[in-house]
Amino acid sequence: MTARIFNFSAGPAIIPESVLEEAKENLLSLGSTGIGIMEHSHRGKAFLAVYEQAVARCRELAGISNDYEVLFLQGGASLQFSMVPMNFLTSGQTADYLITGVWSEKAREEAQRVGSVHEACSSKDKNFTYIPQELKPGSSPVYTHFTSNNTIFGTQFRTEPTPAAGSFLVCDASSDIFSRPIDVSKYGIIYGGAQKNLGPSGVTLVIIRKDLIERGQKELPTMLQYRTHAKNESMYNTPPTFGIFMMNLVFGWIIKQGGLASMAAKNEAKAKVLYDYLDQSRLFKGTAQADSRSLMNVTFVTGNEAIDQQFVSEATKAGFDGLKGHRSVGGMRASIYNAFPHEGVVELVKFMRDFEARQA
Amino acid sequence: MTARIFNFSAGPAIIPESVLEEAKENLLSLGSTGIGIMEHSHRGKAFLAVYEQAVARCRELAGISNDYEVLFLQGGASLQFSMVPMNFLTSGQTADYLITGVWSEKAREEAQRVGSVHEACSSKDKNFTYIPQELKPGSSPVYTHFTSNNTIFGTQFRTEPTPAAGSFLVCDASSDIFSRPIDVSKYGIIYGGAQKNLGPSGVTLVIIRKDLIERGQKELPTMLQYRTHAKNESMYNTPPTFGIFMMNLVFGWIIKQGGLASMAAKNEAKAKVLYDYLDQSRLFKGTAQADSRSLMNVTFVTGNEAIDQQFVSEATKAGFDGLKGHRSVGGMRASIYNAFPHEGVVELVKFMRDFEARQA
Ligand SMILES: Cc1ncc(COP(=O)(O)O)c(C=O)c1O
Ligand SMILES: Cc1ncc(COP(=O)(O)O)c(C=O)c1O
Ligand SMILES: [Mg+2]
Ligand SMILES: [Mg+2]
Ligand SMILES: [Mg+2]
Ligand SMILES: [Mg+2]
Repeated sequence: MTARIFNFSAGPAIIPESVLEEAKENLLSLGSTGIGIMEHSHRGKAFLAVYEQAVARCRELAGISNDYEVLFLQGGASLQFSMVPMNFLTSGQTADYLITGVWSEKAREEAQRVGSVHEACSSKDKNFTYIPQELKPGSSPVYTHFTSNNTIFGTQFRTEPTPAAGSFLVCDASSDIFSRPIDVSKYGIIYGGAQKNLGPSGVTLVIIRKDLIERGQKELPTMLQYRTHAKNESMYNTPPTFGIFMMNLVFGWIIKQGGLASMAAKNEAKAKVLYDYLDQSRLFKGTAQADSRSLMNVTFVTGNEAIDQQFVSEATKAGFDGLKGHRSVGGMRASIYNAFPHEGVVELVKFMRDFEARQA
Repeated sequence: MTARIFNFSAGPAIIPESVLEEAKENLLSLGSTGIGIMEHSHRGKAFLAVYEQAVARCRELAGISNDYEVLFLQGGASLQFSMVPMNFLTSGQTADYLITGVWSEKAREEAQRVGSVHEACSSKDKNFTYIPQELKPGSSPVYTHFTSNNTIFGTQFRTEPTPAAGSFLVCDASSDIFSRPIDVSKYGIIYGGAQKNLGPSGVTLVIIRKDLIERGQKELPTMLQYRTHAKNESMYNTPPTFGIFMMNLVFGWIIKQGGLASMAAKNEAKAKVLYDYLDQSRLFKGTAQADSRSLMNVTFVTGNEAIDQQFVSEATKAGFDGLKGHRSVGGMRASIYNAFPHEGVVELVKFMRDFEARQA
């Protein structure tokens, strides 16, 4: 078998090897059923057990109370950008959006198709290199939307912002979901595509307060109403069964890591290796403001595009894949989600140190 | 390894064993990349090669000209029920719907949220046991929607209906897509979830005429406009990469079977084994009218619910899984899609013959 290399992809991203091994074992027969995981009816006992376990593990990990539904949807975070305003914003009403990156802007654009949007803060003035400390809430927004981790710009909220009184908090947690403990009770809706911390692309985790589901618009296409999916336990139509199976395995893996608090400790230690190196390096420099740094996506540059390119190309040859930064930031980005091994960051830093020495 | 059993599930459904084996080999490393298929960035070379091959094979198999786009979307056929009218039906306009089962009715309901619908035919009078021979088209419908194979009721159009002049044909082909040759040039849009004939659930194949894409509504949520996905080669947001990978393998498998004409011949021979037996059986009886029988879903009853139940339960124990009929028809349903082996139907008929003898 081909040796696995260090995969710094921003998403789809690395999945724990033990999870992939378990998936492998169930492809031709889920347990002893004689039918592969992808071939089971979503209405049959075997898949329903997978689904139930995925919901239970999700609730256990994040301490999700019965006031919330756990849904597995299709369409990615991008469809949630539309579903949230379509369900909760009627024209004439306003929602607050915290603008901390390209994904926040895309979320806002979809809300603007439906109602009014107030920009409660923005870090666009400095190319999204920081998380604003202060909010200027609008007057009675229905909800307050923010992006907990800005995948492209390498910034992350330390903790959730406080929404305007009377408004509920909506979080696009695509790129840091379940990377640290989360107090779900502070949120109305948390959503994220699986493809960074939770599994393969094609399934979107949505955690939503039950009273909101009821308040949602009723005139929408059936598939775009949260109540449709809540009433039918994510099986109004055929769900992405394999994606749910994978997410269930990843939840099991996080539990084995010790849960979200332990995951957070590992992620902090892991990111620190890279940030500590960046802070003392004379060649490389982190692009995000120190107090806003993401533990998931570490963005850095040399300040010289040609050297950046040379670095990415040499790193790729040395088995460090996916380090090229997003075109809107340039430079490099190391995505080091939950499943990314500590050792991989240590090896990267060694390689960077060598590269730096060779440049001197 | 657990022996595989005969899986008659209506969807998610059986996948060719060679395809599952190939998937297995690529889970931890796609080819020699050192990164598993689910872990590759959708923007990287390795996945793009998979995507390109999937499109090319799809075009090759169905002889799809450059006037059409091939899209891989999320949300299942159920989201297409809404996307089609949202893009093409404005209030005041009418679309024709051919009502041949529960799925046609669901498609119509979503259209009714958007515009007017004319029922061009219906077989509801006889619990959808047949395909109506005659259409009564509405006056200048924008499009004509039909369900080529009625998964629940076991009926199938022999060939596509002729839409009213000036209207384009839209087909929900979820349960017989690529089971036989299709003259794509007669259609405006063909869509189907992968989970019956093309792979796992979570990816939806949409074949759509390019001039229609341009005509689509522009005020819709970005993710619900076909132009978004066409412009971005199905990668406006993160596509279900593993689903596309699987579909590509299934396309490859169909090509190895000799393509769609050869697939159709196999499917005919396979279904004939079961229908021939049903026609001479004194215990079992097909529920669909002979001229409307589906080659994909064979529905049958004994006429006695208790015996139906006994049959399903004994069959399950004997390793024939998923034979219980949908609750709206009762009795039994044998779903025998492309990947279902001929030998499985032969074995089932043997088992039915035995059962019948024991009942006598
Ligand atoms: C923070 C964030 N939000 C949203 C998205 C878009 O997600 P999807 O591709 O699942 O629609 C991404 C994807 O990278 C992201 O990083
Ligand atoms: C003919 C037909 N149309 C539509 C659907 C719904 O498809 P999905 O579950 O992909 O939304 C099905 C599912 O069984 C079907 O058989
Ligand atoms: Mg961003
Ligand atoms: Mg430095
Ligand atoms: Mg039907
Ligand atoms: Mg008979």
